[in-house]
Amino acid sequence: MTTPDSPLTVYGNPLSTCTRRVLFALREKGVPYELVAVDLRAGEHKSPEFLKLQPFGQIPVLQDGTFTLFESRAICRYIERKYRGHGTSLIPEGAKEAGIVDEWCSVEQAIFDPPCSGLVSELLFKKSRGLEHDPLRARVLVRQLEEVMDVYERHLSDGKEYLAGEFSLADLFHAPYGVYLAPVGLLPILTTPSRPHVKAWWERLVARKAWREVEET
Amino acid sequence: MTTPDSPLTVYGNPLSTCTRRVLFALREKGVPYELVAVDLRAGEHKSPEFLKLQPFGQIPVLQDGTFTLFESRAICRYIERKYRGHGTSLIPEGAKEAGIVDEWCSVEQAIFDPPCSGLVSELLFKKSRGLEHDPLRARVLVRQLEEVMDVYERHLSDGKEYLAGEFSLADLFHAPYGVYLAPVGLLPILTTPSRPHVKAWWERLVARKAWREVEET
Repeated sequence: MTTPDSPLTVYGNPLSTCTRRVLFALREKGVPYELVAVDLRAGEHKSPEFLKLQPFGQIPVLQDGTFTLFESRAICRYIERKYRGHGTSLIPEGAKEAGIVDEWCSVEQAIFDPPCSGLVSELLFKKSRGLEHDPLRARVLVRQLEEVMDVYERHLSDGKEYLAGEFSLADLFHAPYGVYLAPVGLLPILTTPSRPHVKAWWERLVARKAWREVEET
Repeated sequence: MTTPDSPLTVYGNPLSTCTRRVLFALREKGVPYELVAVDLRAGEHKSPEFLKLQPFGQIPVLQDGTFTLFESRAICRYIERKYRGHGTSLIPEGAKEAGIVDEWCSVEQAIFDPPCSGLVSELLFKKSRGLEHDPLRARVLVRQLEEVMDVYERHLSDGKEYLAGEFSLADLFHAPYGVYLAPVGLLPILTTPSRPHVKAWWERLVARKAWREVEET
């Protein structure tokens, strides 16, 4: 199979977690793209022109010819559907196999993301904007994320390499917020030797060539 | 096409929002099911036996023969994949059309659900457990949900009947928390005449036969 030659445009920011989620999927699929930077500090994502692309004023947005799509997880699903059979398969074919992927995609968004993105927001993004963080909320979120990872540890302890067996969107979705636990000193939640299967899963995930390329962008 | 004859088992509760999401999908697809009540007050969802089905101790869980699946939105996607061509189509075939459905499914989970479920939790669930609610948080969430609905109003104002054009999972996912705004006096957020397209969409959604059957269960 040849590489698709019509490049997609991603409006986003190379350091934005949700933009990186889309770039990770594009690189796993081997699909070329152009990244157009949206200047968040200048409020470009709230400009009338940008709101025509994304009515909630958020990044990223994918443009594929005249077709526009937003919400990072939806964009990843679109890329997988459109480029099925190309690069890494991110959702398996069978109803049951795809069901397990959807299950852990939903776990990521409903159970992992709230404490993880909450911590990154409290301890990294607030600080970078010179705002005070809420130490009590941070402690509650740490405890919550630890408990979630205890469940992941049991889930992964039967020898699976990834959450749904093979690498899939479910794993991919976790990377962008997970890596930002490092600069706030909380990466051990994912890499503590007391949860060896989570540690191995996490290190396997972020060692993927496509993710390393995204981080080097 | 004949009706599928192997009944599925849903472990859940007929008043639980996430259980109702799954029942709505099953009724739209015309798939028979058995609902097995999980006694939340007795902590049955945290029992060792239940944790074998759902490691996070949450409802609902779908059992299809020996196959078990959790997370309500993932279960709905599984039902759609397994019973494609049966009952209502909940995800269209084309990559772009499915992309728009995924986009609004993600909007529901990431943008609509947090303020809406937050309000239902503050004002209904806390009260039913005899807990104090936080009036400041409730006011912030009301404002947030109003702003989200302003975007929906603009999105729906081009004459679409549903969020992605035709009825889909994207609309279906909104019903369970939306209806619980009524007992806390906040249903006008969805039905105010000042957002006529949201009002028409919402009334069309909850008037669907499948949803009325779920509410009457």
